[in-house]
Amino acid sequence: MTQSRLFCDIGNTHFYFCDGEGTYKVKADGFDLSTVRSDVYYISVNDYWERKLADEENWINLRTMVDFEKYYESMGIDRIACCEAVEDALIIDAGSAITVDKVKNGHHLGGYIYPGFNAMAKCFKDISPRLEVSFNFDIDLATMPKNTRDALSYGAISPLISQIREDSDTKVVIITGGDAERLLPFIPRALIDHELVFKGMKKILEGKA
Amino acid sequence: MTQSRLFCDIGNTHFYFCDGEGTYKVKADGFDLSTVRSDVYYISVNDYWERKLADEENWINLRTMVDFEKYYESMGIDRIACCEAVEDALIIDAGSAITVDKVKNGHHLGGYIYPGFNAMAKCFKDISPRLEVSFNFDIDLATMPKNTRDALSYGAISPLISQIREDSDTKVVIITGGDAERLLPFIPRALIDHELVFKGMKKILEGKA
Repeated sequence: MTQSRLFCDIGNTHFYFCDGEGTYKVKADGFDLSTVRSDVYYISVNDYWERKLADEENWINLRTMVDFEKYYESMGIDRIACCEAVEDALIIDAGSAITVDKVKNGHHLGGYIYPGFNAMAKCFKDISPRLEVSFNFDIDLATMPKNTRDALSYGAISPLISQIREDSDTKVVIITGGDAERLLPFIPRALIDHELVFKGMKKILEGKA
Repeated sequence: MTQSRLFCDIGNTHFYFCDGEGTYKVKADGFDLSTVRSDVYYISVNDYWERKLADEENWINLRTMVDFEKYYESMGIDRIACCEAVEDALIIDAGSAITVDKVKNGHHLGGYIYPGFNAMAKCFKDISPRLEVSFNFDIDLATMPKNTRDALSYGAISPLISQIREDSDTKVVIITGGDAERLLPFIPRALIDHELVFKGMKKILEGKA
């Protein structure tokens, strides 16, 4: 049964699973492989786990089924899977890093990487303790900031939004990843799809990518 | 003689001096106060040095002469001094942080803070060792990147440039700070002025701000 296939997207901190029922995540640190007996179709950006899982018969790495000629060698496999899911879209994956990729007529036109919001907050704090901040995601980007918290929030959010506005000559804009909901209000045309990476993985597995 | 006045802009890592002849910098760490006998008109974003210099008779803090009602309380005094130097400009100060401020008809309309390029590179590296990068400042921002180095360089540079393009409805765009030359090629209308902060400090001192 196709529906009961188990997919797993392994990130730096979590295993994200998708079965016939829905999605759930488990911490990567100390993950117990014996809890999963069925076949798992996975991708991983986590070197440690990818090496470890190479010896596990029921863990099938989808990396081997990807046509890398459509992408570039060092491109994150999670970004690739998301791109495989669409024919024509700007894809924003807002996680520990924020990746933005453009796909047109099934071709990857390129993409870029921006710091995730947690990383950006840490970055400001590292520059100076005076720049320690909890971002204001209710900020109005139409007004130039007049206090430090908004100046930092605007600096973290608005340049990315300006860039995305310039990029989004695609039919749809799809946001995925843990910070998708934070970004959505700033990109009125966008849709959220938290299963995008799994949709791409299914297409890779079925050879339809 | 006005020309022989000594000005100093104290940052987190360096003392930047401006005398009648030109500008020069000295490391803040271990700076020997006895090397400066003349009066120095200074501003400081460095708490340690600002406290230390409060007891020195020949170091005159210009902070006391600033009309903070035009700005906001926690705004960096170096940003304020740069704003005081102009009547109508977008000011980009590209240092350890990149600040962007808009001044129109002598009024500060607001501004925002973006990570400096060194901080941004460290930020990417902190997210993942796979994202360690030396930025490509020769990147063509008209093309979507197709390799990791360009994806990170584009992500660090292009969103800021898109934002600045939206902001620059002022008569002039002025870039200052240590990374000014790196930014200039991306902002065709801009001018570089490494003495902007000192021009503002002179205006503050002369009560013309």
